[in-house]
Amino acid sequence: MGKTALLVIDVQKGLDDPYHGKRNNPDAESNMVLLLSKWRKLRLPIVHVKHSSVEPNSKLRPELRGNEVKDEVKPLAGEKQFTKSVNSVFIGTGLEKHLREHDISSLVIVGLTTDHCVSAATRMASDLGFDVTVVSDATATHERLGYDGVLYSADDIHKINLVSLNGEFCAVRSTREVLKEIV
Amino acid sequence: MGKTALLVIDVQKGLDDPYHGKRNNPDAESNMVLLLSKWRKLRLPIVHVKHSSVEPNSKLRPELRGNEVKDEVKPLAGEKQFTKSVNSVFIGTGLEKHLREHDISSLVIVGLTTDHCVSAATRMASDLGFDVTVVSDATATHERLGYDGVLYSADDIHKINLVSLNGEFCAVRSTREVLKEIV
Repeated sequence: MGKTALLVIDVQKGLDDPYHGKRNNPDAESNMVLLLSKWRKLRLPIVHVKHSSVEPNSKLRPELRGNEVKDEVKPLAGEKQFTKSVNSVFIGTGLEKHLREHDISSLVIVGLTTDHCVSAATRMASDLGFDVTVVSDATATHERLGYDGVLYSADDIHKINLVSLNGEFCAVRSTREVLKEIV
Repeated sequence: MGKTALLVIDVQKGLDDPYHGKRNNPDAESNMVLLLSKWRKLRLPIVHVKHSSVEPNSKLRPELRGNEVKDEVKPLAGEKQFTKSVNSVFIGTGLEKHLREHDISSLVIVGLTTDHCVSAATRMASDLGFDVTVVSDATATHERLGYDGVLYSADDIHKINLVSLNGEFCAVRSTREVLKEIV
């Protein structure tokens, strides 16, 4: 059994821009802080992921303030960070190599957004052979206008995307459950 | 502009096993047949994908009848087929290389299931730089029991997974729209 890393995805200021619409799980960041504290206390590996968009209208372009990681989950000195420009952090980065070199076989994934970058990372991690847990109350997404003209709530999108991942690509757990299990 | 390939994912007999629960879009296979006929008529590239599971309880294990591709969408001689054992057809296969070598820059994706292997392929194809269309009425999925104990309908899972993909990883279109656009 290898180590379990906490993977913190795209918790950046630009994702609070009203452009993205209403978000669910307002306490997701507080839960990430609880998990980060626990991982730091136990000296378990932490990997931070930051999105630097190349899309013209993105709020996460590297020259914008929106690109900054939120203060409460900023990496500490010595914690690994990868920067990506597509949805999956496994594409165009050294993440897979880093995990294998550091004997990391399991990932606990938190961050934004559930159905875009969190789901993309979860799917690839699982397909590459890692054991994955996604934390339901330390992830969140936005409402989205559907291709069918219907506005879908952030909570419905969040939940159904986790239902699709659970059992096939990962185990979905709450912050409380993860804190209890990781010792 | 490169060519547009039709990617037909996991349309296998074992996915009709009652084990998987109720499915939506009963006409998905008929729509795949319409698209396959059009692609064959226009001599555009077609790529078939088959899942050969290594999971002990899977209905798609290579030694089972459930592994067989459904008769109506079986590859014809000369059509490329890739076999995979994880969700994303881009992992552990030569698909990306095949597409680049054949000057294919766009994919129209159909098949099963929307939220598992279709979504996984769509996400990676987009992240790898391909232009992707997913056909809403030539894909389908099953009902799923959620991590929260709630049974989610196949139609809700199908629709919300497509909403999450649309605009970020692909364009969602109907069979009729694709047939009209591809000339």
